Amino acid sequence: MVSQTHKPCDLVLFGTKGDLARRKLLPSLYQLEKAELLNANSRIVGVARHELSQSEYVDLVHEALQTFMKEEICEETWSRFSAKLDYCKVDMKNEAEYSELAKHVDQSQRVMVNYFSTPPSIFGAICKGLKAAGLINDETRVVLEKPIGHDLESSKVINDQVAEFFSEDQTYRIDHYLGKETTLNLLALRFANSLFANNWDHNCIDHVQITVAEEVGIEGRWGYFDDAGQMRDMVQNHLLQVLSLVAMNPPVSLDASSVRDEKVRVMKCLRPITKETVKEKTVRGQYSAGVIKGKSVPGYLEEEGANTESNTESFVALRVDIDNWRWSGVPFYLRTGKRMPEKLTEIVIHFKNMPHNIFKESYGTLPANVLTIRMQPREGVEVQMLNKVPGLDDHMVLQETKLDLSFSEAFKDQRIADAYERLLLEALLGNQSLFVRRDEVEAAWSWVDGIFKAWEQTLDKPKPYPAGTWGPEGAALLLAKDGREWD
Amino acid sequence: MVSQTHKPCDLVLFGTKGDLARRKLLPSLYQLEKAELLNANSRIVGVARHELSQSEYVDLVHEALQTFMKEEICEETWSRFSAKLDYCKVDMKNEAEYSELAKHVDQSQRVMVNYFSTPPSIFGAICKGLKAAGLINDETRVVLEKPIGHDLESSKVINDQVAEFFSEDQTYRIDHYLGKETTLNLLALRFANSLFANNWDHNCIDHVQITVAEEVGIEGRWGYFDDAGQMRDMVQNHLLQVLSLVAMNPPVSLDASSVRDEKVRVMKCLRPITKETVKEKTVRGQYSAGVIKGKSVPGYLEEEGANTESNTESFVALRVDIDNWRWSGVPFYLRTGKRMPEKLTEIVIHFKNMPHNIFKESYGTLPANVLTIRMQPREGVEVQMLNKVPGLDDHMVLQETKLDLSFSEAFKDQRIADAYERLLLEALLGNQSLFVRRDEVEAAWSWVDGIFKAWEQTLDKPKPYPAGTWGPEGAALLLAKDGREWD
Repeated sequence: MVSQTHKPCDLVLFGTKGDLARRKLLPSLYQLEKAELLNANSRIVGVARHELSQSEYVDLVHEALQTFMKEEICEETWSRFSAKLDYCKVDMKNEAEYSELAKHVDQSQRVMVNYFSTPPSIFGAICKGLKAAGLINDETRVVLEKPIGHDLESSKVINDQVAEFFSEDQTYRIDHYLGKETTLNLLALRFANSLFANNWDHNCIDHVQITVAEEVGIEGRWGYFDDAGQMRDMVQNHLLQVLSLVAMNPPVSLDASSVRDEKVRVMKCLRPITKETVKEKTVRGQYSAGVIKGKSVPGYLEEEGANTESNTESFVALRVDIDNWRWSGVPFYLRTGKRMPEKLTEIVIHFKNMPHNIFKESYGTLPANVLTIRMQPREGVEVQMLNKVPGLDDHMVLQETKLDLSFSEAFKDQRIADAYERLLLEALLGNQSLFVRRDEVEAAWSWVDGIFKAWEQTLDKPKPYPAGTWGPEGAALLLAKDGREWD
Repeated sequence: MVSQTHKPCDLVLFGTKGDLARRKLLPSLYQLEKAELLNANSRIVGVARHELSQSEYVDLVHEALQTFMKEEICEETWSRFSAKLDYCKVDMKNEAEYSELAKHVDQSQRVMVNYFSTPPSIFGAICKGLKAAGLINDETRVVLEKPIGHDLESSKVINDQVAEFFSEDQTYRIDHYLGKETTLNLLALRFANSLFANNWDHNCIDHVQITVAEEVGIEGRWGYFDDAGQMRDMVQNHLLQVLSLVAMNPPVSLDASSVRDEKVRVMKCLRPITKETVKEKTVRGQYSAGVIKGKSVPGYLEEEGANTESNTESFVALRVDIDNWRWSGVPFYLRTGKRMPEKLTEIVIHFKNMPHNIFKESYGTLPANVLTIRMQPREGVEVQMLNKVPGLDDHMVLQETKLDLSFSEAFKDQRIADAYERLLLEALLGNQSLFVRRDEVEAAWSWVDGIFKAWEQTLDKPKPYPAGTWGPEGAALLLAKDGREWD
C-alpha cells in the first residue's frame, strides 16, 4: 500500500453523537488510523450540543467502536487514535458558541475539514457559525451528508446556504456508493480493459439492470422515511450515481472535473418521464405484511408511528432511457425497495445476443454474455460466458460458465475498506473525484421531480407487495413487456 | 452425455502393430467402448503383414492398452471391446491378399472405415488392393494419417492416388490438433460469446502468438525427421490448422463444408514469404547439446543415426501476415521446436492496448487484455484483465487478474478425451468437419513450399540453439523488431 500523504487536518464531526458518526464515521477513522493513513498531526474534533468531558467523549468513541466494528479494538491503534480525539460542545444553531470551537482548531497549522453529519436543515446555521467565529478560509472544507433537499428547489436552498460560505471546490457531497470498492473497480473494468471498453455501447449491450434491494424495513425511522420515500432516499442519489458511472463516456482523466463532467452529461441525457410515459416506465410499491427468511414482518402502514393513509413508496422500478449516441435504444432498468427477499446490490450488464447461432443443435437460443458487478452482499465481479463442455457428444454442448473475479477470492488477504473510509480519506486528501458536484445533484433532482409530477398528474398510488417479495407484479411486467426479465 | 449413434462399422486398422495404432488408436477405441460410444455391432479389424492368430492379436491389443493407458483396464469394458477385435494378415503391397480381408468385413451389414496408419507411400497400394477385392462402395471411407506428402507436388500425387478410388466425401484426413477439446472450445469462445466475437479483428487485436513447443528431441526417428524437419512436420499441418481456426471468418454453420470453406479462405490469404522477406519473417534453428530440466541431452547432429552435415531445422519461428479485411496489420507469430525448455502448446490472443490511459499514476503503460487458449500441458482458457486492487491507496492501483477457465477446474468431473477418440468417433459417424480437406492441404503446402524455396534462394541455414532454450536468438528478435515479445 502506498502511504497517503495529506496535510494535517482538524476533522470536525458535527453530530458526533449521531447514528452515522457512531456507526460509520468513527469506526472508519479508526481504520484509517490503524492503516496509518491519518497524518500524525491530524485531529478529530467531535461536536454536539451535549456537555461532555474529554474523557467522556473518548469513552463514547470507544463504545461506538466496540458496538459497530466486527473486529477487536487494537490497543496500539486505539492509543494513537484516542490521542487525536477532542470534543467541543456547540449548540449548532447558536452562532455565539462557535468561538468555543475556534479554541479547538488551528487553521494556521491544520486544514479544517467540517463533516456535517446533521440534518441539512442546519447546514446553513453551521456555516454561519463557522463564519462568525472566523473559521472559514480558502482551505477550509465542508463535507455534506444527504439528503440534500427534498426536490430541486429545496436542494438549491441548501446548496445556496452552503455556497454563501464555501466555494464548490471546498464542498464535498458524500454519496457512499461512490466509495465502494466495486464502484471504483467499475472504472478499472471499463477504462483499463479493451474487451469491455470496445463492447460498451448500444452496438454490444442489450440492456442494464441496477438493483438495490434492502431486506430491512424503515428501521424505526418512519417519520423521516415517509417524508422521503424510496425514490428520494435511494434513486435520486445512489442509483443515479451508479447509473452515471456505468453510462458515462470515458473521462479524459480521473481528476474530479473530468469524471464529474462526464457523469453530469449522462444525467442531462436522461429522458424525462412524463404523465404520458409514467405508467409504462415506472412502478411504485409499498410493502404489506409478509415473511422474510421465515420471519413475519409488519406492513409499511403497520410500522410504529405510521400514518395509515400514507402513499409513500418503499419500492420503485424504472425504465430509464438515455438519449445520447452511446446508449440509444439501451434501457437501464432500476429497482430498489425495502423488505425484499434479500439484501442485494448489483449492476448487471446484459450484452447482446449473437446475431447468428451455429450451435442450434445444443442451444436453441444462445444465452448472451453477462457482466455482473456485485456490491452486496459480497463484493465481486463475474463474467458469464459460454464454453464447450468437454466430452464426445455428437454436437457441441455448450455451458454457461462464470468467470469469477470476486474480491474475496482474488484478493484473499486484502481487507475490503468500507466506503466511508475511502471517502473520509479522500476528503482529508482534498480530492473531489468521488464526491457529487452541485450540478449533478440538481440534474438528478430535476429528473426525479419530473417523475413525482407525473405520478401526481396521473394520481398514481403505490401498489402493495408482500414483504419478502421482489415488489409488485408491475415490476416484472416492466421488463416482460420488453421481452426481458430481472436477474 | 448424449449417446452417439453411428451405423455399425468395420473399422480396419492398416498398420495395427505400428506405434500410432498401439499408442493412440487402440487406447482411444477402448475409451470409446468404455463410454459406450461404439455401436454394438461395430468391429475392429487389425491389419498387418505378420502372421498372428486371433488370440495373439487380442493379446497384442491388451498389451498396448496396458503400456499406453494411464488407467487400469476395466474388465467389463475389455470383454466387450475384445469381442469386437479381429485380425487379418495382409501384405499391403500385394493386391491378391486383400481377398482375405474381404472375408473379415461385411459391407452389406457394416460401413467399412479404413484407417491408413501406414506410410503414405503405400496409400495407393492399399486403395488398389481394396478395389481389387471389391471392397470399395459409395459408403466406404478412408482415414489418412499425415504426412500427406513432402511438398505440394508429392501431396498431389498421394491425394490423386487415393482420389482414384475414393471421393473427397469419403476421405478423412486426420490432423489430431483438430480433435483437441481446446480447439473445439475455441469455436465456442469465438462464435457463442459476443464479448469475443465483437473483439475479433484488426480493430481490437494487436497480434496472435501460436506456440507448439516440444521437450522431446527426435525420439529415435532421425531418418524420418531429418527428411521432414519441423516446418513440414508441424507448421504445414498443426500450426496452420490452428491458425486457420483462430483467423477464419464465422462459418454459416458447423457443418463440414461451411467450416472448411472458411478455413481454406484463410490459407489462401496467407501472404507469401519470398526471398525478399524470408530473412525478416522466418527463423530456423537446430538444437545443439544442452540441458533440459537438469538433464544433459545431445545435439541434433549427435543423435543416433545422424548425418552430421544435416541442415534440417528442428525449430521454426515465423511472422505470418494474413491479407484480408479482418486481419490487415495483425501479425500471427508462430513458433515450434524440439528440445524446448518445456512441453507447451498455446494460442495467445493479444488485444490492443487501450488508446488512452487514465491510470497513469499506477500504471505507466496499461497492459493489454490477453486471451490464452492452452492445449498443453493442461488444457484451459484464461483471460487476463485489469482490476482495481482493493485498498485505500491515493491513486487507483490496478492488477492483472487471470480469469481462469481451465477445464480441469471448471469441469472437474469430466475426463478430457484424447483428440484421437473424438476423431475416430467422428470418422465412424461420418462427420468431416474436423478433417482436413484436400484444398486446405494443398493451400498449406503451396505457402510452405514458398518458404522452402526462399530459404534455398537465400542459402539460409538453421542457427544452432542449445537444447533447453526457446530457439535461436533470432526468434526473440523476430518479435522484438516489431516491439513485441513472446509470452
